[in-house]
Amino acid sequence: MTFELTAKDIHSKARAGEITTAHGTIQTPIFMPVGTAGTVKAVHQRELTNDIQAQIILGNTYHLYLRPGLEVLEQAGGLHKFNGWDQPILTDSGGYQVYSLSGTRKIVEEGVKFKSHIDGSTHFFSPEGVMDIQRTIGADIMMAFDECTPYPCEYNYAKKSLDMTHRWLQRCCDRFDSTEGKYGYDQTLFPIVQGSTYKDLRIQSAETIASFNREGNAIGGLSVGEPAEMMYEFTELVCDILPADKPRYLMGVGTPANILENIALGVDMFDCVLPTRNARNGMLFTSQGIINIRNERWKNDFSPIDETVGGYASTFYSKAYLRHLVHSGEMLGSQISSVHNLTFYLWLVKQAREHIIAGDYLAWKDKMVKQVMQRL
Amino acid sequence: MTFELTAKDIHSKARAGEITTAHGTIQTPIFMPVGTAGTVKAVHQRELTNDIQAQIILGNTYHLYLRPGLEVLEQAGGLHKFNGWDQPILTDSGGYQVYSLSGTRKIVEEGVKFKSHIDGSTHFFSPEGVMDIQRTIGADIMMAFDECTPYPCEYNYAKKSLDMTHRWLQRCCDRFDSTEGKYGYDQTLFPIVQGSTYKDLRIQSAETIASFNREGNAIGGLSVGEPAEMMYEFTELVCDILPADKPRYLMGVGTPANILENIALGVDMFDCVLPTRNARNGMLFTSQGIINIRNERWKNDFSPIDETVGGYASTFYSKAYLRHLVHSGEMLGSQISSVHNLTFYLWLVKQAREHIIAGDYLAWKDKMVKQVMQRL
Repeated sequence: MTFELTAKDIHSKARAGEITTAHGTIQTPIFMPVGTAGTVKAVHQRELTNDIQAQIILGNTYHLYLRPGLEVLEQAGGLHKFNGWDQPILTDSGGYQVYSLSGTRKIVEEGVKFKSHIDGSTHFFSPEGVMDIQRTIGADIMMAFDECTPYPCEYNYAKKSLDMTHRWLQRCCDRFDSTEGKYGYDQTLFPIVQGSTYKDLRIQSAETIASFNREGNAIGGLSVGEPAEMMYEFTELVCDILPADKPRYLMGVGTPANILENIALGVDMFDCVLPTRNARNGMLFTSQGIINIRNERWKNDFSPIDETVGGYASTFYSKAYLRHLVHSGEMLGSQISSVHNLTFYLWLVKQAREHIIAGDYLAWKDKMVKQVMQRL
Repeated sequence: MTFELTAKDIHSKARAGEITTAHGTIQTPIFMPVGTAGTVKAVHQRELTNDIQAQIILGNTYHLYLRPGLEVLEQAGGLHKFNGWDQPILTDSGGYQVYSLSGTRKIVEEGVKFKSHIDGSTHFFSPEGVMDIQRTIGADIMMAFDECTPYPCEYNYAKKSLDMTHRWLQRCCDRFDSTEGKYGYDQTLFPIVQGSTYKDLRIQSAETIASFNREGNAIGGLSVGEPAEMMYEFTELVCDILPADKPRYLMGVGTPANILENIALGVDMFDCVLPTRNARNGMLFTSQGIINIRNERWKNDFSPIDETVGGYASTFYSKAYLRHLVHSGEMLGSQISSVHNLTFYLWLVKQAREHIIAGDYLAWKDKMVKQVMQRL
């Protein structure tokens, strides 16, 4: 994997760059649609390419490990071959799901024992095991196995957890560096900064992670319930320490405003379930603001959902028709809303990139945050 | 509306023809995907056109009347404008849903009083009212308001009901002929043969319906639980009476075998929820036979769903991937299955048409019925 910086904003820390992987290049800043179980919910693969113009999607190690399972994925020749998405894929480490979905889990030095949310069966994830699983999935970008602490989190727990996350990282790197991709192409491994909402821990973690000198770095444990201002404070703190010549990935973020603000602080990559999950509840993000499509206001609005962002779903269907589908509980309602919201997210980061290159990112960002976050 | 016969099979009563409506032509025999509430469930409009190659879709008067309602449909300029489907649309009369969905309904000479399955509110459908509703929906082909009797049905009830259906038909025609389309294009009205499973009633009804001399005729009240052989017997009986120079529409039919057999008896048009409803349960109709995609057998089958029938969903995705999606309860599983099953149905009637024109329909049909109905 390589990363090239294309442009840096003068008035903020925003950067435009290009990541090159075995499955193609990614122009940053970028948003990665979440494809939990090998599918971005309600979205066809060609819609990802043609309408949404996604450049990389995310897969969840926890979900893929349970279903379809490693045997099927390996026989298919990896996730790209299995789901037909031949552009870059990033997989998380499964840690986050193990902590949040699994009712009973036990974290020890060796790893995490947990129960499947599907059938209650017992499983064990270790740093080494999770590397092996991600080798089998075949993601272009693999993530280290860490502990993502909740918010708020006691200082002592956060410190103990962070030290273990750093020891786990060493084990991840040892396993990663002593193995090879299974399908004839290179993969890379991103470590993750943790440290909850404690400055000294975040600084210590960012310095430790930077010292591993991997090809890219991630920031985890934010956007877990803390105020947005606090998130921005820690993003900036950490970005300033992480090397400038490597991509920075802020995990699980966020709203359109969160994304634009964090880009200004030096973040290059984002992922979040928000655009797809909220789509399924009838909440649309558009270039003009936020729409609750269930509202009476849209009943007779026969204008397209959002002509500005382009793509079939956003320009072909009207608000009134989509409102009808959502009210009627029709699957097509979720399909249109999901494709639209992702189209908007990808449009937004593309716009951001252009304004970074044009040199007016900060002014555009301040205007845009207000515009896209207003309720219509 | 016009109908031209293109070819007639020598060895059976199968015909190939062409129906021309204000929204384009339809090559018969044809299958019409069911778009209940203005959406073919889980299918995008461009998938209907490009992948499935649908030529006409069905809308349900009952559902559209309740949601989005007539005010929205009229403001939109009719259903075509509302959902963006600019090819032909046929609407049923709402009768079938009123009888089957509505818990409490009362049928009197004037019409039917029923309760909405959504909110329990009381409504009244009369032959005249249903004509007005279908004028507002703007379907190219409207259906008469009839009573569809259940199976089995007492002779006396069937006879009484049939007489009323014929009186209602006169009222439908009177209203239809004294009104005009609301959106500047012509609509047409098909009457419906009823008579349950009684030969004398079916003959009487077919003769009555034929005497109305409308532009096309429908056969209702079959495929409601009676044995397939009985359905074929009555289809043939009725088709022989209905005029040969008008299209014949067999309502609510059926399996691939049902369709091929009824084509051989002189039917030109079909609709059924089977391909989409069964798709959502993981049952696939393919050119090679019937697949329960949940079965272990498909777990590692990375071949396309059905390359023979063409279209994106059927050729891009593998059986193993689709099985995974269905097992995981992913919406994309229903989407792929629905598009595939409809692609197969449209492929099947297109093949039927070609074999009618080529003159070898009967032999092809006998082979094909066995092939597509076998369980793989």
